[in-house]
Amino acid sequence: MTSIAPRNPDFRSFVQRYVGAQGYLNLLGVELARVEPGLVEYRLPYKPELGQQDGVFHGGVVGGIAEGAMGAAAASLVAPGHNVVGAEYKVNLLAPGLGTLLARGTVVKSGRKLMICRADVYAQRPDGSETLCAIAQGTMAVVEPAASR
Amino acid sequence: MTSIAPRNPDFRSFVQRYVGAQGYLNLLGVELARVEPGLVEYRLPYKPELGQQDGVFHGGVVGGIAEGAMGAAAASLVAPGHNVVGAEYKVNLLAPGLGTLLARGTVVKSGRKLMICRADVYAQRPDGSETLCAIAQGTMAVVEPAASR
Amino acid sequence: MTSIAPRNPDFRSFVQRYVGAQGYLNLLGVELARVEPGLVEYRLPYKPELGQQDGVFHGGVVGGIAEGAMGAAAASLVAPGHNVVGAEYKVNLLAPGLGTLLARGTVVKSGRKLMICRADVYAQRPDGSETLCAIAQGTMAVVEPAASR
Amino acid sequence: MTSIAPRNPDFRSFVQRYVGAQGYLNLLGVELARVEPGLVEYRLPYKPELGQQDGVFHGGVVGGIAEGAMGAAAASLVAPGHNVVGAEYKVNLLAPGLGTLLARGTVVKSGRKLMICRADVYAQRPDGSETLCAIAQGTMAVVEPAASR
Repeated sequence: MTSIAPRNPDFRSFVQRYVGAQGYLNLLGVELARVEPGLVEYRLPYKPELGQQDGVFHGGVVGGIAEGAMGAAAASLVAPGHNVVGAEYKVNLLAPGLGTLLARGTVVKSGRKLMICRADVYAQRPDGSETLCAIAQGTMAVVEPAASR
Repeated sequence: MTSIAPRNPDFRSFVQRYVGAQGYLNLLGVELARVEPGLVEYRLPYKPELGQQDGVFHGGVVGGIAEGAMGAAAASLVAPGHNVVGAEYKVNLLAPGLGTLLARGTVVKSGRKLMICRADVYAQRPDGSETLCAIAQGTMAVVEPAASR
Repeated sequence: MTSIAPRNPDFRSFVQRYVGAQGYLNLLGVELARVEPGLVEYRLPYKPELGQQDGVFHGGVVGGIAEGAMGAAAASLVAPGHNVVGAEYKVNLLAPGLGTLLARGTVVKSGRKLMICRADVYAQRPDGSETLCAIAQGTMAVVEPAASR
Repeated sequence: MTSIAPRNPDFRSFVQRYVGAQGYLNLLGVELARVEPGLVEYRLPYKPELGQQDGVFHGGVVGGIAEGAMGAAAASLVAPGHNVVGAEYKVNLLAPGLGTLLARGTVVKSGRKLMICRADVYAQRPDGSETLCAIAQGTMAVVEPAASR
């Protein structure tokens, strides 16, 4: 995955701006942990506002961070001036999300118009153990400069 | 859809407690707009903290509210003492989410262990026009009393 | 759904040619039962070659006919000279497929480049009863004349 | 993936019987190329009956073989007397399927009731080059002895 050539030499700072501009990620408390061409990792520590009725991360948060990491991975590969928006995604929730979430998004196919991505979301417990808690797959659409969907 | 018989005569108050117990829905500002057996509607007005880089709802929010409405629709059909957790879902984002989101989740098949659901998410503009902005499909797993995944 | 305007006045004969040209549909024995703008129905009687280990339709057949009906529904809406190819789809299998399958594909959003579709697959038993055996959702990509993916 | 312990010491012969009993796989011409605990590979050479309008594998075949390989991977992990049926799956089609398909299904999480799987489908051209033509993700339900869905 990491051997995909970026079209933008400043892809790291572009991804940082892309993430920083998303109010939702700031609301959740998502941290950008790693950026490579076609690969982005998000970290998200648990807090009660992100939970569901039984004290673990809400499925919508787990799916949302998976989708977000796929979007950022796609953003790392677009040409200067371009952007990405989510087109579709699918999430399987494997285990309760407890502790800190680590979502790794990767681009499986980097097309000019569509980028096909996968994500793995791990839950890191305070004791250091790690559980795979979700897998995802989806499509990001590339938005050309001065274009809208 | 609305002809599915609820297993819990107090399904309305159960769904209200189910929704109220989810910190994540409160963080977003989700309002429970309608509860029928096998059908729940969520409303969510836009605020900048729920946006992405271009000022519309983040895809993770749109998908999250779709998943949430499916979960609540499933919750309306479980027997007393039971609960539901999300197993998997898939979202297609059709149009930018601008204005107020209205997510309608319905149960397509109500099994003892798994409930298969669909959701439609509409964006209601201030001028009253309405756009279908996402469709979703997913599976909720029924959790028996005193059991954990 | 049926109120979507077709871009090709000869959409019915185009869909018939589109279906007839697909060797796979002929191998299965799929019959084109209905064509409207943005809506296509396929019929498929059971035969043992389409089964799995327990004598019901193989999940790959049920998913395949759902995907096929969505593709044909999308094909009913493209402009003359254009074509469609599947980009992605998701299927939930609800009940064993026994008897004759009826797959109804509809276009939920008809874009210039992407068409978002849904499908319902019913199993019609010899006694006339009908069971919803699968629901699907997916994206068809529009292929312009003289273009390839 | 391959380090998952099988519950059935005769998992190889069980998977062979499981595949052999599926009329649909025989109709397509699927060959069982590899069986490990939690991993199965299917091979499928192209023939015109498996094509769509432009001479490549029909998307329903590509998705079907992906679903089939996930099902067989799950079957390799069930206890003696148990079986698996597909519950849901999602496929992204990345490139036209030309030549021979190789579908590799793996079990990502092996639960008692549900198995979460992924699949990669490669197209092998006559010149030896290999293209990733689809990725899939899905859920297989474990069927206990003498039980039916």
